[in-house]
Amino acid sequence: MLEALKKQVYEANMELPRRGLVTYTWGNVSGIDRESGCFVIKPSGVDYDELSPEDLVVMDLLGKQIEGRFKPSSDTATHRELYAKYPQIGGIVHTHSPEATAWAQAARSIPLYGTTHADYFYGEIPCARSLTPEEIEGAYEDNTGKVIIETFEARGINPMYTPAVLCTNHGPFTWGKDAAQAVYHAVVLEEVAKMAAKTEVINPKVKPAPDCIRDKHFFRKHGEHAYYGQK
Amino acid sequence: MLEALKKQVYEANMELPRRGLVTYTWGNVSGIDRESGCFVIKPSGVDYDELSPEDLVVMDLLGKQIEGRFKPSSDTATHRELYAKYPQIGGIVHTHSPEATAWAQAARSIPLYGTTHADYFYGEIPCARSLTPEEIEGAYEDNTGKVIIETFEARGINPMYTPAVLCTNHGPFTWGKDAAQAVYHAVVLEEVAKMAAKTEVINPKVKPAPDCIRDKHFFRKHGEHAYYGQK
Amino acid sequence: MLEALKKQVYEANMELPRRGLVTYTWGNVSGIDRESGCFVIKPSGVDYDELSPEDLVVMDLLGKQIEGRFKPSSDTATHRELYAKYPQIGGIVHTHSPEATAWAQAARSIPLYGTTHADYFYGEIPCARSLTPEEIEGAYEDNTGKVIIETFEARGINPMYTPAVLCTNHGPFTWGKDAAQAVYHAVVLEEVAKMAAKTEVINPKVKPAPDCIRDKHFFRKHGEHAYYGQK
Amino acid sequence: MLEALKKQVYEANMELPRRGLVTYTWGNVSGIDRESGCFVIKPSGVDYDELSPEDLVVMDLLGKQIEGRFKPSSDTATHRELYAKYPQIGGIVHTHSPEATAWAQAARSIPLYGTTHADYFYGEIPCARSLTPEEIEGAYEDNTGKVIIETFEARGINPMYTPAVLCTNHGPFTWGKDAAQAVYHAVVLEEVAKMAAKTEVINPKVKPAPDCIRDKHFFRKHGEHAYYGQK
Repeated sequence: MLEALKKQVYEANMELPRRGLVTYTWGNVSGIDRESGCFVIKPSGVDYDELSPEDLVVMDLLGKQIEGRFKPSSDTATHRELYAKYPQIGGIVHTHSPEATAWAQAARSIPLYGTTHADYFYGEIPCARSLTPEEIEGAYEDNTGKVIIETFEARGINPMYTPAVLCTNHGPFTWGKDAAQAVYHAVVLEEVAKMAAKTEVINPKVKPAPDCIRDKHFFRKHGEHAYYGQK
Repeated sequence: MLEALKKQVYEANMELPRRGLVTYTWGNVSGIDRESGCFVIKPSGVDYDELSPEDLVVMDLLGKQIEGRFKPSSDTATHRELYAKYPQIGGIVHTHSPEATAWAQAARSIPLYGTTHADYFYGEIPCARSLTPEEIEGAYEDNTGKVIIETFEARGINPMYTPAVLCTNHGPFTWGKDAAQAVYHAVVLEEVAKMAAKTEVINPKVKPAPDCIRDKHFFRKHGEHAYYGQK
Repeated sequence: MLEALKKQVYEANMELPRRGLVTYTWGNVSGIDRESGCFVIKPSGVDYDELSPEDLVVMDLLGKQIEGRFKPSSDTATHRELYAKYPQIGGIVHTHSPEATAWAQAARSIPLYGTTHADYFYGEIPCARSLTPEEIEGAYEDNTGKVIIETFEARGINPMYTPAVLCTNHGPFTWGKDAAQAVYHAVVLEEVAKMAAKTEVINPKVKPAPDCIRDKHFFRKHGEHAYYGQK
Repeated sequence: MLEALKKQVYEANMELPRRGLVTYTWGNVSGIDRESGCFVIKPSGVDYDELSPEDLVVMDLLGKQIEGRFKPSSDTATHRELYAKYPQIGGIVHTHSPEATAWAQAARSIPLYGTTHADYFYGEIPCARSLTPEEIEGAYEDNTGKVIIETFEARGINPMYTPAVLCTNHGPFTWGKDAAQAVYHAVVLEEVAKMAAKTEVINPKVKPAPDCIRDKHFFRKHGEHAYYGQK
């Protein structure tokens, strides 16, 4: 089932090592079919070199494995929480890409310092709070998803305007309308994270860009007044 | 029309990903034919992988699209301002290359710390002021060009001696006698930006190089007393 | 003798330049056959480009060369000390990979800042003390091994839980159940070292991750309750 | 004339872009034939892609061009000064490699922080003083060589023990018994420069390695008691 989606999610997974975002098996991409309510995700711990579309695992939103001879990614429950909460999300990525992970380990949101950031993320990339010992010892991966959702809800962030989050002491998740766009956002996040760290080294007193820069660039690319690109 | 120029501008555009200066579509190169007063520029948001010379857009200096089935780069008006003001400029590049963009986000001019810089840029690489909210909400891309020009005029900088600028919270523009040289300067700027940031980490109290170093190296390569190279 | 082991150790050696961990000849991998008590190691100063499995040197645990037309790695005695002390170790790697070496030169253990670290190393990566002048002028390479052992014993660290060490002013050693896993750990260490340094730049006051994160991630991948991967 | 030497110097030049040490034409390698007193050097400003052995220029130690249709490197006089002063030198390299150049721009000698450094350089890599305005406006490239020599003589450094120097506000020169070894030292210097800067970021209070580490590692590889490698 879901052969076209499996192909898309496979291609999106393979883009991670091509873009330099993963070492060994440290990443996973999923994509959802909203009609059936099933999502397709990378199997746990399988090398990218050996991955093929038929190795992908099909899950439903209750957490039941529908198809696949492999176990799904250990982060599957986090993906599930996000799909269940946000119906606009069509694809999700998790990596340990070094620049974004460094911000996550530093437990800091990434300030919006310029137009590269504003072209894709409408405001700072939020860093979610640490999980409590109980949350970690319990349903850890579900709770990771729940703390991401808490972050967006409590801070009033639209997840389709800011399709990325940092999990403290862990690393980034990104998402998009589909698996390919989720990977695109993972690549942009890594570049933005790298530039932001360099920016602070060059000017330790730097302030975030003004809101008018954020608004101009984000809406130059997104929404009904967008004029970037060929649409 | 302008087939030879389109080929040149196409080649210059393709050099950006080869040199590692662009992620996705984050860059654009143009070149001008001074006889006709028309310039050729990359279309907006088109992947480098899919770009061909005939996709390039021909514009005039009044901002009218003369040829091309695609919309031009969203930064076209900035290019036009610079071409209109400075008749010596034959090609212009804009990128979000990470090292130069970090300086732009940090809102700092790049000090001249050594001969690599002085071989190509006669003094610091200026960082233009932030645009006002009115400038941003109005003709943003035109105003970006106007603020670049204001920077060079107010500081008395010869744009052919210092063919690069940083736009606060945004990124670099470079230029040259033609599109190829503009890309060459974009590559040099990125290298110079990287070295300057490293220099300040190694010695936080470093001072710019003395003027005699700047003069020696710049004029070793430029002007009637140049003796670098085979000319 | 030990042809299969030589092939494994050869492949593990060749993985070092492929993974970008060595410049020129700055690294060596060994693997041991516990039945015969012999280990196979890279010859000293031989280029990776010119290395073949039959060039590897066979040593016993008393330090006697059993086979091979070349001299063994100058670090052979360090490998021997570790094999002799820890029977669980099947392979050892030494490199001068830049990120891990920078921590070794800085004489600092790498704090556990996140899950990338905790997935493979159960606690900080220890930095062993400097050797004394007497230890350096004496049996230097043996003493390097002895100081590594002293570090693990004195701090109560299980070397199979934390299969890596930094030698002050020198660089890293890693190990594993075999040569391939030792190289895998060398790659992970380099990535963890890079992220940790970036983390401290982004947040100079960062604290190590809580123990519950360390426990959760380490035991998600290791031991009888592991659920990562397909086993 | 000197066809074998031209081939060697050509190969050594071509190694610079392969090792990532040069952008565009920013580097040059020479090699000397001590019998004839002539040295072979890269022509000025010629692209590596277009370079062939017959393009190399033959110079004598008085500064006279003996052969070649091109002008020699603009840094030729610096090479000549070093060859004339130090008869043990067989090859010289100049680059603007970014890590070493950052130290030169920072006007700091590179402290010996570890064994990677000590394996090749017996003590800190000296940073030569700035040239005076008179030295810059006069015979600049000769004076660059003279200030390098002054640095080694005044500080009592053996140039064959420490085959590298940083020129303030400029960049590195390295040398060796022949052109290939000079390039090898340029590669090592870049790696050492990178590690040293990282070391100071990780531990701003780090001290240089003790002399016994320097002596142990340098003489493990050099001199009559060397035991590294197969000699």
